[in-house]
Amino acid sequence: MTRPCNDSFLRALLREPNEHTPVWLMRQAGRYLPEYCETRKRAGSFLQLCKNPALACEVTLQPLARYDLDAAILFSDILTVPDAMGLGLYFTDGEGPRFERPLREEWAIRDLTAPDPWDHLRYVMDAVAEIRRALHNSVPLIGFSGSPYTLACYMVEGAASSDYRGIKGMLYERPDLLHRILSVTADAVAAYLNAQIESGAQAVMIFDSWGGSLSSVAYREFSLYYMQRILDRLIREKGGERVPSIVFTKGGSLWLEAIADSGCDAIGVDWTIDIGEARRRVGHRVALQGNLDPAVLFASPDTVAAEARKILDSFGPGQTTGHVFNLGHGISQFTPPDNVAALVDAVHQHSRMLRQRSE
Amino acid sequence: MTRPCNDSFLRALLREPNEHTPVWLMRQAGRYLPEYCETRKRAGSFLQLCKNPALACEVTLQPLARYDLDAAILFSDILTVPDAMGLGLYFTDGEGPRFERPLREEWAIRDLTAPDPWDHLRYVMDAVAEIRRALHNSVPLIGFSGSPYTLACYMVEGAASSDYRGIKGMLYERPDLLHRILSVTADAVAAYLNAQIESGAQAVMIFDSWGGSLSSVAYREFSLYYMQRILDRLIREKGGERVPSIVFTKGGSLWLEAIADSGCDAIGVDWTIDIGEARRRVGHRVALQGNLDPAVLFASPDTVAAEARKILDSFGPGQTTGHVFNLGHGISQFTPPDNVAALVDAVHQHSRMLRQRSE
Repeated sequence: MTRPCNDSFLRALLREPNEHTPVWLMRQAGRYLPEYCETRKRAGSFLQLCKNPALACEVTLQPLARYDLDAAILFSDILTVPDAMGLGLYFTDGEGPRFERPLREEWAIRDLTAPDPWDHLRYVMDAVAEIRRALHNSVPLIGFSGSPYTLACYMVEGAASSDYRGIKGMLYERPDLLHRILSVTADAVAAYLNAQIESGAQAVMIFDSWGGSLSSVAYREFSLYYMQRILDRLIREKGGERVPSIVFTKGGSLWLEAIADSGCDAIGVDWTIDIGEARRRVGHRVALQGNLDPAVLFASPDTVAAEARKILDSFGPGQTTGHVFNLGHGISQFTPPDNVAALVDAVHQHSRMLRQRSE
Repeated sequence: MTRPCNDSFLRALLREPNEHTPVWLMRQAGRYLPEYCETRKRAGSFLQLCKNPALACEVTLQPLARYDLDAAILFSDILTVPDAMGLGLYFTDGEGPRFERPLREEWAIRDLTAPDPWDHLRYVMDAVAEIRRALHNSVPLIGFSGSPYTLACYMVEGAASSDYRGIKGMLYERPDLLHRILSVTADAVAAYLNAQIESGAQAVMIFDSWGGSLSSVAYREFSLYYMQRILDRLIREKGGERVPSIVFTKGGSLWLEAIADSGCDAIGVDWTIDIGEARRRVGHRVALQGNLDPAVLFASPDTVAAEARKILDSFGPGQTTGHVFNLGHGISQFTPPDNVAALVDAVHQHSRMLRQRSE
């Protein structure tokens, strides 16, 4: 396995020097792109789009055709794993994902088993392999999964929740049951990410969308601990190249030091923390990924570029690595596509300029 | 003016020693109480309940009749100020508050003026006075307002929002317009809180529900700065007694040091930070209020008591002041009322025990 032609993303994650700060955007293949909406329409539904490797490959590549992005990310849903566990994922218009059979009964929790990703999640592995072929080693491909706690939120609640009544009631009253769910789910996620790596993913990211809703103590016990268990079991090298890992807990900036100790190569940070401060707190143990407020993309291209430059300046003008530029959360469907071009160009230009200046 | 019989809440805010840790709960007069639901039904609507001083007084006192709480808080809505500015507040079932005339046009923003609280918000002052009479100086009464940024979120969006597209677009593209809204709103809130103090409020709290959705830099410029302006103008003493102030930015624990410098007497903290760590970060400059995860109240009374004790232990076993126990957010409507009794009793008993042990 050789590194892609543009390996700036992998170099940043591994804290190797690079010529510019790489940039990609969470949910970069998404509804703000008209071509995505068209493919989705053709697929019939979001879930059919995820489960069709050819179409998943098509939408994965769409943002790369438009913008000079430094990484591709597998197009999929974070809830594929619980779906493969038999919970019956479906989507309702405007209400997001739901499960037909949420985990409510003790017997169902005891019966839960980790699915074989090569069997029940074959369509994901096929998509990874197809995307890798289509990329022709131009940029690296990121695989991903939801974190065990985030998946458990949906599995117990049956849908997105505003108060997490079900799962938090369980966390405080029956922690044994929640640990059982998390333990099986961590096994499933580790196998799932490793299968993605075997299929061609060159880096992996764990999305912990809801860990930030926990107390400091509960975060460590119910979210971070299980991400750590996954990281411990990941394939760390493939074909002589390290496969770096990124952990992103939205709302987790209070706990950066603990996350940095988890064994990940990089931490995704949302926009609430100054990235320079984040860097001072974690030092050079890990790389950082982030952290523009996605709402900046509702402004004009000039403002977008100016705000991007502020983040690069804050990270440190003399820094030639350790930073992957991204948003602090997924891109909004209401983003004007031209603003993404302005963002990508500003990151590349300004980061090159900073490197020249510091030489 | 003399202090109330039970002044443990005021003593904690002013960092004076007290015999137990005081406790009250955000939204303590609310839908989890059947008697509240009955009064609200009688009132006709939530807004009619807020605007009727006799009924607002009735619901304010309900939780105090049930539980041994150490403070009362004015029953009202955070959006009374923009309503008095002429935006036309109304409520839709299940969708929360909305404004008939959100701030979308530059001319409307230029025309915005701060309302005289004695005129347009007279019903709030009447409620404050009536509650004070009804309390017979048993416990202190807290007045409150939304923060300028939080009010502006609703004023610009016209309703609660998931992505704050309107206000953040304005923040990044037309900061001059947002500063104009915030400046007028800060004037209005300062006058509103001062009128509450004149009417009998013995402490005031600023609820910054949405400041936590800002970047670190934007929080200081668009939320904290205007809260500071309000704090600078507050009546700090009434009848020889200091009127303490509390600032609560939900999701603001990254910025505790900056909030502590704002001139407030206490910081409200949500449950994502360990309260002992919060205390180490701000020292004894300010008191802290918080921070049980409201979801703990979905568990059993024993678990509720155990989790409350953990917070008291974390704050510091030798501490005889500087802590007001509260939830990290408003109490859920799904809370079993008996759990609140378990919580209040656990806070009082355990905090008394800790004081005895450290003597």
